[in-house]
Amino acid sequence: MERRHTRKFVRTFFTTPTALEGEEDSAKMLNRAADLRGMEAPDVWVPDNEDATAPSMRDEGAQNIIDVLADKGDGFPGEVHPRIVWHRDSPTTRHQGFKHMLEIADPDNGALDNLDGFVIPEVGGIDDWKKADEFFTIVEHEHGLEEGSLAMSVIIESGAAELAMRKLRDEMGKPDNNLERMFLLVDGEVDYTKDMRAITPTGGLPEWPELRHNTSRGASAAGCIAVDGPYDDIRDVDGYNERMTDNQAKGMLGIWSLTPGQVVEANTNPLPPATGSWLLDADGREVELTEEDGVFVYNGDRISLTDEGDEYVLAVGGDEQTLDEDALVDELLGLTSYVPSMDDIVDSMEEFEAARDAGTGAIAITRSATLEIDGVEVDISTDRMWDEATYQAAKTPITLFQDVYEHRPDQHDDLAELYSEDVVERAASVGN
Amino acid sequence: MERRHTRKFVRTFFTTPTALEGEEDSAKMLNRAADLRGMEAPDVWVPDNEDATAPSMRDEGAQNIIDVLADKGDGFPGEVHPRIVWHRDSPTTRHQGFKHMLEIADPDNGALDNLDGFVIPEVGGIDDWKKADEFFTIVEHEHGLEEGSLAMSVIIESGAAELAMRKLRDEMGKPDNNLERMFLLVDGEVDYTKDMRAITPTGGLPEWPELRHNTSRGASAAGCIAVDGPYDDIRDVDGYNERMTDNQAKGMLGIWSLTPGQVVEANTNPLPPATGSWLLDADGREVELTEEDGVFVYNGDRISLTDEGDEYVLAVGGDEQTLDEDALVDELLGLTSYVPSMDDIVDSMEEFEAARDAGTGAIAITRSATLEIDGVEVDISTDRMWDEATYQAAKTPITLFQDVYEHRPDQHDDLAELYSEDVVERAASVGN
Amino acid sequence: MERRHTRKFVRTFFTTPTALEGEEDSAKMLNRAADLRGMEAPDVWVPDNEDATAPSMRDEGAQNIIDVLADKGDGFPGEVHPRIVWHRDSPTTRHQGFKHMLEIADPDNGALDNLDGFVIPEVGGIDDWKKADEFFTIVEHEHGLEEGSLAMSVIIESGAAELAMRKLRDEMGKPDNNLERMFLLVDGEVDYTKDMRAITPTGGLPEWPELRHNTSRGASAAGCIAVDGPYDDIRDVDGYNERMTDNQAKGMLGIWSLTPGQVVEANTNPLPPATGSWLLDADGREVELTEEDGVFVYNGDRISLTDEGDEYVLAVGGDEQTLDEDALVDELLGLTSYVPSMDDIVDSMEEFEAARDAGTGAIAITRSATLEIDGVEVDISTDRMWDEATYQAAKTPITLFQDVYEHRPDQHDDLAELYSEDVVERAASVGN
Repeated sequence: MERRHTRKFVRTFFTTPTALEGEEDSAKMLNRAADLRGMEAPDVWVPDNEDATAPSMRDEGAQNIIDVLADKGDGFPGEVHPRIVWHRDSPTTRHQGFKHMLEIADPDNGALDNLDGFVIPEVGGIDDWKKADEFFTIVEHEHGLEEGSLAMSVIIESGAAELAMRKLRDEMGKPDNNLERMFLLVDGEVDYTKDMRAITPTGGLPEWPELRHNTSRGASAAGCIAVDGPYDDIRDVDGYNERMTDNQAKGMLGIWSLTPGQVVEANTNPLPPATGSWLLDADGREVELTEEDGVFVYNGDRISLTDEGDEYVLAVGGDEQTLDEDALVDELLGLTSYVPSMDDIVDSMEEFEAARDAGTGAIAITRSATLEIDGVEVDISTDRMWDEATYQAAKTPITLFQDVYEHRPDQHDDLAELYSEDVVERAASVGN
Repeated sequence: MERRHTRKFVRTFFTTPTALEGEEDSAKMLNRAADLRGMEAPDVWVPDNEDATAPSMRDEGAQNIIDVLADKGDGFPGEVHPRIVWHRDSPTTRHQGFKHMLEIADPDNGALDNLDGFVIPEVGGIDDWKKADEFFTIVEHEHGLEEGSLAMSVIIESGAAELAMRKLRDEMGKPDNNLERMFLLVDGEVDYTKDMRAITPTGGLPEWPELRHNTSRGASAAGCIAVDGPYDDIRDVDGYNERMTDNQAKGMLGIWSLTPGQVVEANTNPLPPATGSWLLDADGREVELTEEDGVFVYNGDRISLTDEGDEYVLAVGGDEQTLDEDALVDELLGLTSYVPSMDDIVDSMEEFEAARDAGTGAIAITRSATLEIDGVEVDISTDRMWDEATYQAAKTPITLFQDVYEHRPDQHDDLAELYSEDVVERAASVGN
Repeated sequence: MERRHTRKFVRTFFTTPTALEGEEDSAKMLNRAADLRGMEAPDVWVPDNEDATAPSMRDEGAQNIIDVLADKGDGFPGEVHPRIVWHRDSPTTRHQGFKHMLEIADPDNGALDNLDGFVIPEVGGIDDWKKADEFFTIVEHEHGLEEGSLAMSVIIESGAAELAMRKLRDEMGKPDNNLERMFLLVDGEVDYTKDMRAITPTGGLPEWPELRHNTSRGASAAGCIAVDGPYDDIRDVDGYNERMTDNQAKGMLGIWSLTPGQVVEANTNPLPPATGSWLLDADGREVELTEEDGVFVYNGDRISLTDEGDEYVLAVGGDEQTLDEDALVDELLGLTSYVPSMDDIVDSMEEFEAARDAGTGAIAITRSATLEIDGVEVDISTDRMWDEATYQAAKTPITLFQDVYEHRPDQHDDLAELYSEDVVERAASVGN
C-alpha cells in the first residue's frame, strides 16, 4: 500500500465539518472540499469529526469520511488526516475516537488508500499521547498495516500538552511505542486559552508567542511540523497574513485554514514574493514604497525631506535633522529594508554557489535603489555578507518551494503564473 | 478539622510583616491586616516571616502569627498562608523554617483552625520542593493532621525553580511525596532578577514575560494557581492595573499586593467592568472613547475626520485617506474594539445557551455603536461568531466571579454596588 | 598546572579564523588576535577551527592554534577556548573534533598551559553533550590532566540543544560524566534559524527572545554563563549596543564579537556608565536629555510645554493637557527615568549598607533634576525604596565590575580613565 508521509513542509491545515444536521446530503461540505485543486487545495485536509461537527452527528460523520474518501480520495492532491474525538479527561471520548479510527481505516470500507493519518485533539501529558499511539498500533495490526504507517498529529490545547512536546524526542524510538508516527504539532489557541484560564478585556485571543515558540521548537527537536491554530476573523485577510509572517519568524510555517480563501492565502504567503520591494520605517510604521519608473517613492506625511543645495533637512515624525549627503544616505539606510523576490533569492544562492565552487567562502550581496521623498531623489546601496551559514539559513523558503513543487503538481500552473516559468524552473533546481 | 483549599482562583496575595522592631505591639501590622474585610481583604493573606520581617524578629514573628490567628482568625474572610523562611542553599534556614511551621501548626497553640498552609520562598529544583513537602508531612503527623491537608505554595525566584515547575505534574501522586498539597506558584521577580543576574539601565525590574508564561503554564498543567510578584511602585495605580491586564492574557489571574489599596485594585481588576466601553487605536495609542448621550466621542488630535459630502477624509497621525462611507466604516472597525461589561458577557452566554438548547451550534454576537470624531458621526457594527469553544473560553471571567461569589460572602455588598443586584444574581447562576 | 576557570562573568566571546588559505602566514589572524590587550582583548578568545575556517584548512588550523598559544599564550590577558568541529548528525565530524582536541591539549606541543577549554558547536540532545564530555575526559586522561579541568562550552544552534539546557542541572554530578566542566552556553542564531526553518521577509535573523531567555535560565540553573551569538552588521554600533541592553534584561551578559571594535563595545556596555542621564519618553520614542549647566533639556518637537501663569499646557504627540504644577510634575515623572552612573550605584549601595548596619531595613533613594522643555523649567524628584532584595538585585553590575577588575588587570588603566581612579577604587571594594 502506498503511504505518503513524505512532506517536509505543510503550509495549510484545512478543516471541514463531516456531517451537517438537517441537510439532505450531510456530507455536502466534505464533498465540496474533496473537489478542491491547485492553490485552493490544502497540503493537509482534515475532515473534522470533532469541534466542527455536532456531537450527535459524529457517527454519521465517520461514515461520511469513509464514503467521500472512497469516492473522491484518489483525485485529492493533498494528504488526508481526519480529526477524530479525544480528550485527556474522558475515557468515553477516547474509546469513541478509537472506534472511529478502526472503522475509517478498515480496508474493506475503501477509504484506507487515501488516508494518511489521524489528528488527535485535546491531548494531555506524554502518557496520554502514548494512549493514542497505542490505538493507532492496534488499528494497524487489525487491518494488516505496518506499525507506524498511519501518521499521528496532535492539537496542543492545554498546558500539559505544551509541556509534553519537549519530551517527544526522548520518547520516540522506545520499544513500547511507535511515536515515530508523529507528524504535525498544531496549536489550538481557543481551547488553550480556556485551559490556561486567560482573560483579555475585549474577549479576543491572546497572542501566545511562547506557546508558538515552544511548538516550533518541539517540532524541530522531534522532526515534526509546526502548525498554528485557526484565525477566526475570516474577512481580515491582512491580519491573517500578518499572523503568518509572525509565525514564520518562529519557524512555524503552517497554519490552519477555515475556508478555501484562507487556503489560498496560506498556500501562497510562506513562498517568497514574485516582486521585490523596499520598506521604509516611517516613524514607527512600516510602509512599502511605490515603484514609479524604477524609483521607489514615499507618499506619506510622516517623513519629509528637503534639498537645500549643499545639505538636506530630513524630518521624521516632527524631529528635524540637517544632514550632508553621506549622512542622509546613512540615515535612510537605517530606515529602509529590502524584501527580496523569489528571483532575487535564487540569484543570490547561485552567486554564492559559484563563488564557493571557485574557493571563496563569503561574498557580499548588494542591493541598490533610488528613493524619492517629497520629490527629492537619493541613491542608496547596501551590502550583506553571505557565507555558508547565511546561505543555509536563507535557503529555507527555497527548500519549502521545492517541497511544494515536488508534492503538489496540481499547483505548477499557479506557480508558473505567479513567478514565470523560468523563475519556477531555476527555483526548483537551485541548491541541489 | 475544617480545611478550606477549595478556591479555584486567587486574585490577591497580600503580605504583612509579622514583627516590627521598636514598636510597643510588634504584631501591630498583623492585627491591622486581620481586621480587613470586603474588597480590602485579600483572597490569600500571607503573614510574612521572611523578607518583610527583620531576621532578628522572626522567632517573635512566628509567635505573633500564632497569637493573631488564635485571636482574630475566625473572622478573617480569606485564606491564611504564612510565609516562613527557606533557602535552597542553606540547611540552617530550612531547619529554622521547619521549626516555625511545627510551632505555628501546633493545635495546642490555637492557630491551626485558621491556618490553610505555608508559603515557601527561594525554592530550587524539584528535589528542594520535596524537602519542604516532607517537612509539611512530618508537621501533619506530629499534629495529627491528614497528610496533604496543609497547602504548600512556593515563590519562583530562581532559574532552577522556573525549571522545576514543568516537573510538578510528573512528580505529584508518587508514593514518596504529598505534592498534591501544592497550591500557589508565585513569581518573585526581585530575587529572580538577582538570580538571573539581569541588568537594566535604570535599575527597574525586567518584564520577564517568559517566566510569567511558564508559571501560568506550570499552574495549568499541575492544577495550581499562578500569582505574579509584588509591584513596588505603590503610587502607580495605572501601572499596577496594566500589569494585571498583561498577566491575565497569560492566564495569571492573581497578583501580590503590598497595601490594602493594592488589594482593592487586585480584587477588582480581573472581574469584568460594570460598564462596557469602546477603545480606539489612535495612531498606536489606545484611547477609551467618551460616551455622550449614547454616542462614543473621540476628543484627541491624533485622528481627524471631515465629511465632504459624498466622501470622508480620515487622517491618522498625518496620513490622510479619502474614503466613501463603507470604506470609512471598514477602516474604523479596524481601529476600534469593544470591552464588554459583566452584563454584556452574561447576555452573550445566555444567548448562546438558548441557541445551543435549540440545536444551533454557533451564533453571531453583534456590537453596534455610533462614533463621533471631529463632530462627524459614524455608525459601526461588528459580529463575532460564538461556538462552544468560544463560549467556554469567554466563560473564564464568569467562573472567576462565581468562585469569588461563593467563597467571599463578605464582598457581596461591594459586588452588588458595583454591578447592581440583578447583574450579580444573573452572573452567579449563568452557565450552571 | 595552573587552570583559570574562575570567571563568574564573561562579557566577550571573540572568534578568530585559525588558518587562512593563500596567505603566506596562514596564522596571521591568530597572531594578531593574540596581541590584543586592554579593552580590545576579550574575556574569552575563541580560535575558531569551525565555521570561520575553511574545511580544507582545519588540520593546519589546529596546528596554528598550538603554535600561537605556545608562542604568545603566556601574555594573553583573557581565557582561551578554541572552537573545534562537531555535529550532532555526523560521527566523522565528531571524530575529527576529538583528534584536534587530543592534539591541541597534548602537553608536549606546548599550548596546554594557556588552554582553558574547548567550544563545541552544533550539539544536539543532552546525550550528544555527553559524547563530547567523554572525549574531554579521555583527552584529560591521555595527557595526565585532572578530570574536568578543561572547560566545555557549547553553541546552542538547534531546537534539540535548546531543550537539552534544562536537563543540565539534573545530569551534572552523575558518576558517569564530568559535566561539571560546563562553562559557556552560547546562542548561535544563524544556524538555529536554519534548524528551526524560520523565514523573515527581508532575510534578517529573527530576534529569538524565548531562546535567549531559555539560555540565560539554563545558565542560571546550572552555574554556567550565557552568551549571545554574533551580530553580523559590524558597522551598526548602535544596533549592537541595543542588542546588549536587551540581552542584559534577560540576564545574558555576554555576547559574541567579530572584530576588536566589537570587543571594545561589548567589554564596556554591561558596565554602568561613567555619567548618569535622564531619559524622556517623547511620545513613544525614548530620548536622552542634554545637560546644560545642570539643567536637563529636551530639544525635540514631540513634546511641547507652555507656562501660562497659573497653569501649564503640555502636548505629547498632539494630545494637549492643561495642568497645574503638581499635576505637571506628576506627568513628567511618569515620562522620565534616570540611568544611574557607576558612581550613583556605589553611592546608593554605601548608603543602604550604612542604614542596614544602623538597623534600618529599607531606605528611600532620591533622584532630583531640573528639566527644561521649550524654555520652561520644572523641578522633579523621585524616590525608590531600597531593601535587602533591591540591594542584592542592584548589585549585579558591581559584581560584574569586580570580577572584571580581579581578572583583567590589563584593563585597569582603561577603567580608571573611564570612571576616575576614585570611583574605580570604591566600586572595587563596595559590598565586600
